[in-house]
Amino acid sequence: MKAHVWVMPKRTVLDPQGQTIQHALSGLGYSAVKDVRQGKFFVLNLDGLTREDAQSQTERISKEVLTNPVIEEFRFEILD
Amino acid sequence: MKAHVWVMPKRTVLDPQGQTIQHALSGLGYSAVKDVRQGKFFVLNLDGLTREDAQSQTERISKEVLTNPVIEEFRFEILD
Repeated sequence: MKAHVWVMPKRTVLDPQGQTIQHALSGLGYSAVKDVRQGKFFVLNLDGLTREDAQSQTERISKEVLTNPVIEEFRFEILD
Repeated sequence: MKAHVWVMPKRTVLDPQGQTIQHALSGLGYSAVKDVRQGKFFVLNLDGLTREDAQSQTERISKEVLTNPVIEEFRFEILD
């Protein structure tokens, strides 16, 4: 079983990496790109868990380990 | 229009960040997590492009700017 976790800067938080990329793209002629947000993406391989346990463990891991709740938010999905 | 881009270390490349997280999780008691891979996730806001142009520009941007082709691979999707 696999879990996919996305961790993104909160909407209210500046994203300097994303801004830097947006400026670079603008300089390269990609003027259609108005905004860039950069986050993290995790693939977790889970062994021997029920789908419910995978769900609850991934939520705890996302909340306690992968995300800084002051500036980031997360979402996840469980895949068979 | 939006583009989502995932950039991941190639399967053949070691992922020290992912390994560190896996070890930390193991130490915290999450023994079901056998492997962790960490990548990057980008959300691009695109303005005034047709879907075809959004597709081709996002592919070029992913290839030329967001990905280091020696150690990383990417995939993307275009959203209305």
